[in-house]
Amino acid sequence: MARVIRVAAAQMGPTALAEPRERTLARMIDLMEQAAAQGATLVVFPELAFTTFFPRWLLEGEALDRHFERAMPNPAVQPLFDRAQALGVGFYVGYAELTPDGQRFNSAITVGPDGSLLGLYRKVHLPGSVEPRPGARFQQLEKRYFEYGDLGFPAFRGPAAWHAPILGMLVCNDRRWPEGWRAYGLQGVELMLMGYNSAAYDPNGGSTEDAALRTFHSTLVAQANAYMNATWAVSVAKAGDEDGSALIGGSCIVDPNGVLVAQATTLADELLVADCDLDACRQGKEKMFNFAAHRRPQHYRRLVDQVGAVLPE
Amino acid sequence: MARVIRVAAAQMGPTALAEPRERTLARMIDLMEQAAAQGATLVVFPELAFTTFFPRWLLEGEALDRHFERAMPNPAVQPLFDRAQALGVGFYVGYAELTPDGQRFNSAITVGPDGSLLGLYRKVHLPGSVEPRPGARFQQLEKRYFEYGDLGFPAFRGPAAWHAPILGMLVCNDRRWPEGWRAYGLQGVELMLMGYNSAAYDPNGGSTEDAALRTFHSTLVAQANAYMNATWAVSVAKAGDEDGSALIGGSCIVDPNGVLVAQATTLADELLVADCDLDACRQGKEKMFNFAAHRRPQHYRRLVDQVGAVLPE
Repeated sequence: MARVIRVAAAQMGPTALAEPRERTLARMIDLMEQAAAQGATLVVFPELAFTTFFPRWLLEGEALDRHFERAMPNPAVQPLFDRAQALGVGFYVGYAELTPDGQRFNSAITVGPDGSLLGLYRKVHLPGSVEPRPGARFQQLEKRYFEYGDLGFPAFRGPAAWHAPILGMLVCNDRRWPEGWRAYGLQGVELMLMGYNSAAYDPNGGSTEDAALRTFHSTLVAQANAYMNATWAVSVAKAGDEDGSALIGGSCIVDPNGVLVAQATTLADELLVADCDLDACRQGKEKMFNFAAHRRPQHYRRLVDQVGAVLPE
Repeated sequence: MARVIRVAAAQMGPTALAEPRERTLARMIDLMEQAAAQGATLVVFPELAFTTFFPRWLLEGEALDRHFERAMPNPAVQPLFDRAQALGVGFYVGYAELTPDGQRFNSAITVGPDGSLLGLYRKVHLPGSVEPRPGARFQQLEKRYFEYGDLGFPAFRGPAAWHAPILGMLVCNDRRWPEGWRAYGLQGVELMLMGYNSAAYDPNGGSTEDAALRTFHSTLVAQANAYMNATWAVSVAKAGDEDGSALIGGSCIVDPNGVLVAQATTLADELLVADCDLDACRQGKEKMFNFAAHRRPQHYRRLVDQVGAVLPE
């Protein structure tokens, strides 16, 4: 008895700082309609999908606040929620969350095909800095604009219409951190949903890692962490040139063996669709990565007792 | 100021159950001499390098004990140690350890170019089972023959002749477990040494994962865990057909970006040599994987509080 859910990765091309919200929403609805037409019942959008990757700019006041959602849904994004429910499609979407008491998070939600909120995740691994880099054309100010996620890594069940998968969410840089994956693996995750905005190169002219290497890294961590936790993974980019700052693409769907099932070939809006048999996770979970049989947590204490590295003499 | 150490991965072809120890030693010395001739000063041999992969057999008494080393070195392996010291070459080698008080471990040591013992590691993640599978032609009895490693993941410094690298060791199945890698990452590891014997397919006729997929897995975890811990990694197989049970090859040297620098193409004795600039670890350790800046251990508690998976409702 296969438990197959047809999933779509909805990669988005660039969204300029000046882009009107309505046009972004229209692109997302178009991708969702394409996904539904192909029979997908779960669509994965990128991190901060409704806006440009605004942490590259030093902003304050309304110029910053307009990127944040004070409720989810809200009137500005309601058309996406309405269309999803009409199509019977659920979705993952990343957004900047401003809570009623003024906290700010880089968050993602998963919405069921009936419109219900299935899960909320707040990004734990914030890259970047609090203070702007003097003289830099582009910043990475996630540590300035967001608080660290305070919900941990909470797995949750999807609905029976999706064969009740155990779902997990990560946001962008989280996907490079095996601790988060393992926290979900220890809850039996079968389908990991992740959106990202990852720089294609140092926009300030450093020559460290080129776009091909950065795309390789993005794909590599999706593949290996999916394999090591015996889960499907859907990893979705906002890609292309946003106001002179380039983002990698490389959105992909990965099976529980770590094998690429589909990968984007453009830096634009692009849909990937794949059938994910959740029961394909079983072999890994029952054999190679049978945690109960093989893990030895008494030797993993450093992972929680240390934050940074402590070098031997 | 680059800190370059020239490293050799000494993949070994199969070693039959009946193979005389002297012939195995001669092969290892030959590989070591090739490595030294190419200027390598550190040679990495496989797991259980002196013997066949004997946990596939149900053995007892002397038939089992003859695969174990009661001291390291000992007369049967002394020629390798002597030749290494004469060549000024250090090495990693995996072996079955029988301690004076009767404990048994699947162990590895690293020996310096001056013959000194730099480190001892005892495999933490033992696969297989305690009880033999009835009727099976081949077993996987590591949990029967070995105790779980009791030393954790102890990083150590190599000598000045190697530019004082921070070294880590893993054995076989350990390389698939990100916890062990991270324990070393948290000690600043710059060069991870690993040997393995990994089945190429289910020798009892199951049709789960073929040799290509298993080799892909082996390479994938070396690449991704090297990248996520910003370390070089040398992963070395015993490969080929041992008495009708096939082992994958795919030995590789991986840089701190997770990029393959060299990979074996045969299932026989085969040497890979690469220059590893230890300072190439710095970018990853200082930026993307700056643990002190970015890790959030308060959210990693499950990794030590749970052994097996606990599923959501």
